[in-house]
Amino acid sequence: MAPITLTTDFGERDSYVAQMKGVIAGIAPSAPVVDVTHEVPPQNIRVAALIAEQIAATFPPGTVHVIVVDPGVGTDRRILLAELDEQRFVVPDNGILTRVWRNAKRRRALELTNSALWRRVQSHTFHGRDRMAPAAAHWWAGMPLDQFGPPLDQPPVRLQWPEPQRQGERIRGEVLYVDRFGNLATNIPGNELQGRHVRRIVAGPVQIGGISAAFAEVPPGRWVALINSWGMLELAVNRGDAAALSGLKPGDPVIVELSGAPDEEDVCIVQPPAD
Amino acid sequence: MAPITLTTDFGERDSYVAQMKGVIAGIAPSAPVVDVTHEVPPQNIRVAALIAEQIAATFPPGTVHVIVVDPGVGTDRRILLAELDEQRFVVPDNGILTRVWRNAKRRRALELTNSALWRRVQSHTFHGRDRMAPAAAHWWAGMPLDQFGPPLDQPPVRLQWPEPQRQGERIRGEVLYVDRFGNLATNIPGNELQGRHVRRIVAGPVQIGGISAAFAEVPPGRWVALINSWGMLELAVNRGDAAALSGLKPGDPVIVELSGAPDEEDVCIVQPPAD
Amino acid sequence: MAPITLTTDFGERDSYVAQMKGVIAGIAPSAPVVDVTHEVPPQNIRVAALIAEQIAATFPPGTVHVIVVDPGVGTDRRILLAELDEQRFVVPDNGILTRVWRNAKRRRALELTNSALWRRVQSHTFHGRDRMAPAAAHWWAGMPLDQFGPPLDQPPVRLQWPEPQRQGERIRGEVLYVDRFGNLATNIPGNELQGRHVRRIVAGPVQIGGISAAFAEVPPGRWVALINSWGMLELAVNRGDAAALSGLKPGDPVIVELSGAPDEEDVCIVQPPAD
Repeated sequence: MAPITLTTDFGERDSYVAQMKGVIAGIAPSAPVVDVTHEVPPQNIRVAALIAEQIAATFPPGTVHVIVVDPGVGTDRRILLAELDEQRFVVPDNGILTRVWRNAKRRRALELTNSALWRRVQSHTFHGRDRMAPAAAHWWAGMPLDQFGPPLDQPPVRLQWPEPQRQGERIRGEVLYVDRFGNLATNIPGNELQGRHVRRIVAGPVQIGGISAAFAEVPPGRWVALINSWGMLELAVNRGDAAALSGLKPGDPVIVELSGAPDEEDVCIVQPPAD
Repeated sequence: MAPITLTTDFGERDSYVAQMKGVIAGIAPSAPVVDVTHEVPPQNIRVAALIAEQIAATFPPGTVHVIVVDPGVGTDRRILLAELDEQRFVVPDNGILTRVWRNAKRRRALELTNSALWRRVQSHTFHGRDRMAPAAAHWWAGMPLDQFGPPLDQPPVRLQWPEPQRQGERIRGEVLYVDRFGNLATNIPGNELQGRHVRRIVAGPVQIGGISAAFAEVPPGRWVALINSWGMLELAVNRGDAAALSGLKPGDPVIVELSGAPDEEDVCIVQPPAD
Repeated sequence: MAPITLTTDFGERDSYVAQMKGVIAGIAPSAPVVDVTHEVPPQNIRVAALIAEQIAATFPPGTVHVIVVDPGVGTDRRILLAELDEQRFVVPDNGILTRVWRNAKRRRALELTNSALWRRVQSHTFHGRDRMAPAAAHWWAGMPLDQFGPPLDQPPVRLQWPEPQRQGERIRGEVLYVDRFGNLATNIPGNELQGRHVRRIVAGPVQIGGISAAFAEVPPGRWVALINSWGMLELAVNRGDAAALSGLKPGDPVIVELSGAPDEEDVCIVQPPAD
């Protein structure tokens, strides 16, 4: 059976995530439960939307993804169940679906309103445990989607998403995500660069003279640009922390200069960030 | 089947928790194992007791909770198996059961002494792996409780627990727990406040003029008091870190003023903590 | 069934580990997956080798251990499948097997080259997901080892490992590993000390006058030397952080003085580390 996955901003110190698992175990005891991460920066819906996209691409059909980054808990924000291609999502309606909704060819979504499916004891502060976890468990266990509530009268909330801009031979994007290694993922899809000569990549104090295939194609400590494991242009330092070394962070611009004869190879000038 | 849960202060960097899971997998390979948290502050039995209470309320009957916060490992402190209502616990006898023992209607407990059930290779420093994990796995797999050892001749160790004091129209409690968001859970049960008018809540530099239902009932950055997901009065800042903003920490007093006509609504004065 | 375990330096913030689990769930949906740790210090192969040894000693026969600390990803470093006694490993060939290879009585290893078993979409930066996870899942599910690739033409890469030196009545070892409690595990096996009188242990500013059985045999705040849960001499402070108190770190020398009449008992002089 495909698993239920959990993604939250609850951290790992408290018992919140375990309480959700306890509720799931009571309804669907044989459901495999996979933790994606509970270290989404508190209330950061954009990161949650990005992670949704990454896991939708790797989990088997029928997986139920519960993603609880929910600053609006206890208000009238909706809770959604959405089937997007063959991946299933249970989320607060605050933009978490932005990317997977856009990517999907087939979409079916409804609002979770059937309170008979909720946990008997309800709180106003923890719908992840009291509403989303039981809904996910029932869905996983085979309950038909229309039992959970009515179809949406309005489409899901979607975030404004930074899209890269193409201007002649330049692509202007930005840093989208910094991972635990300090690698700087951008919003520029690798397939925009396919078959093109990349002359130079500029981001803050960093200049990189082309695309490499792997981190280890440059010596330790050197900057490298590559297409990362989810298909995006990424700036990194082999065996180093690119974010710390450059001061670059999400939102900072990244310029890719295409074509033209390459006038420099693997150029890399790094200045320490001003403090 | 109900799962086995693991709660420890072992952290996530080392292989200690995994070693316990390896032992469990060798005895009860089909037991689902759920991590509650391994970030209990080192040797903090009070936090472990609180988490025991939270998970006892959410996991299905028959769940075996292994909780290893064990500063006395290797001494003659006892290891207990306890069945409290329908939840099962395997713990060192140092106060971890304080809350769940108090809450339970039916209690059965014994000391783990049957060394035939222990791991063959024993250490003096890791009874979580060598004694508690195998006992939990055998219990989960159906071994009758009386096989593990004799009934207790003395009741389990219990911690002194801070109870809120009611003085006329005032309840004097304290901060009990700070979660990862910086929310300040108190030791004042929400049902003490039910049907009463809460005039004011005072804690250090913070004054809050009543109880709200949800974080988002106040604007971002404002203080809010609410009944949290485990039924306790909690002080928080909507989308903010109440502990960091106020300097409040476990043990600090919290005063609730009841009844009287409300002379102020949603008052909130925050001064930076003196340093 | 024995589980699949995952050990990486990916951290817990990103979805990398979950992506590996998604791939495994697609191939071997009933495989129990156990996280060992994802907090191996980035690219620290020595710690990964040590953890491999610890889990090999505790997981049941047939367990498949996937260990991804892989600074050479995308280069021509090999990926290995190794069956060492009854434990199975899927690793990049960079020294992770150093300890378990040495310990094993029976060894069988081959190079993962059968690309038909890899994930359809390949990246150059995430072989943990694209090659090792699917190989582990197929191996777990029963695929014969010779389907994965050819036997090794060269033995696995092994790290230089610091071995303790015996000089007369002195053993000179070093700090090997600092755990989350700050306990200082050394590279001196406890069985080197069995039946011997330990007169004194000296490490930087610390002197300890003998071996104790358990942390709690000394008062809180006092230094203690004991044989740890994986059989090595360990220096610790009861309920304290030995690493922080002493400034000792991996690689620092540890001297054990054997035999002779004990001229001091439980001596302990700690000076703050120079800064």
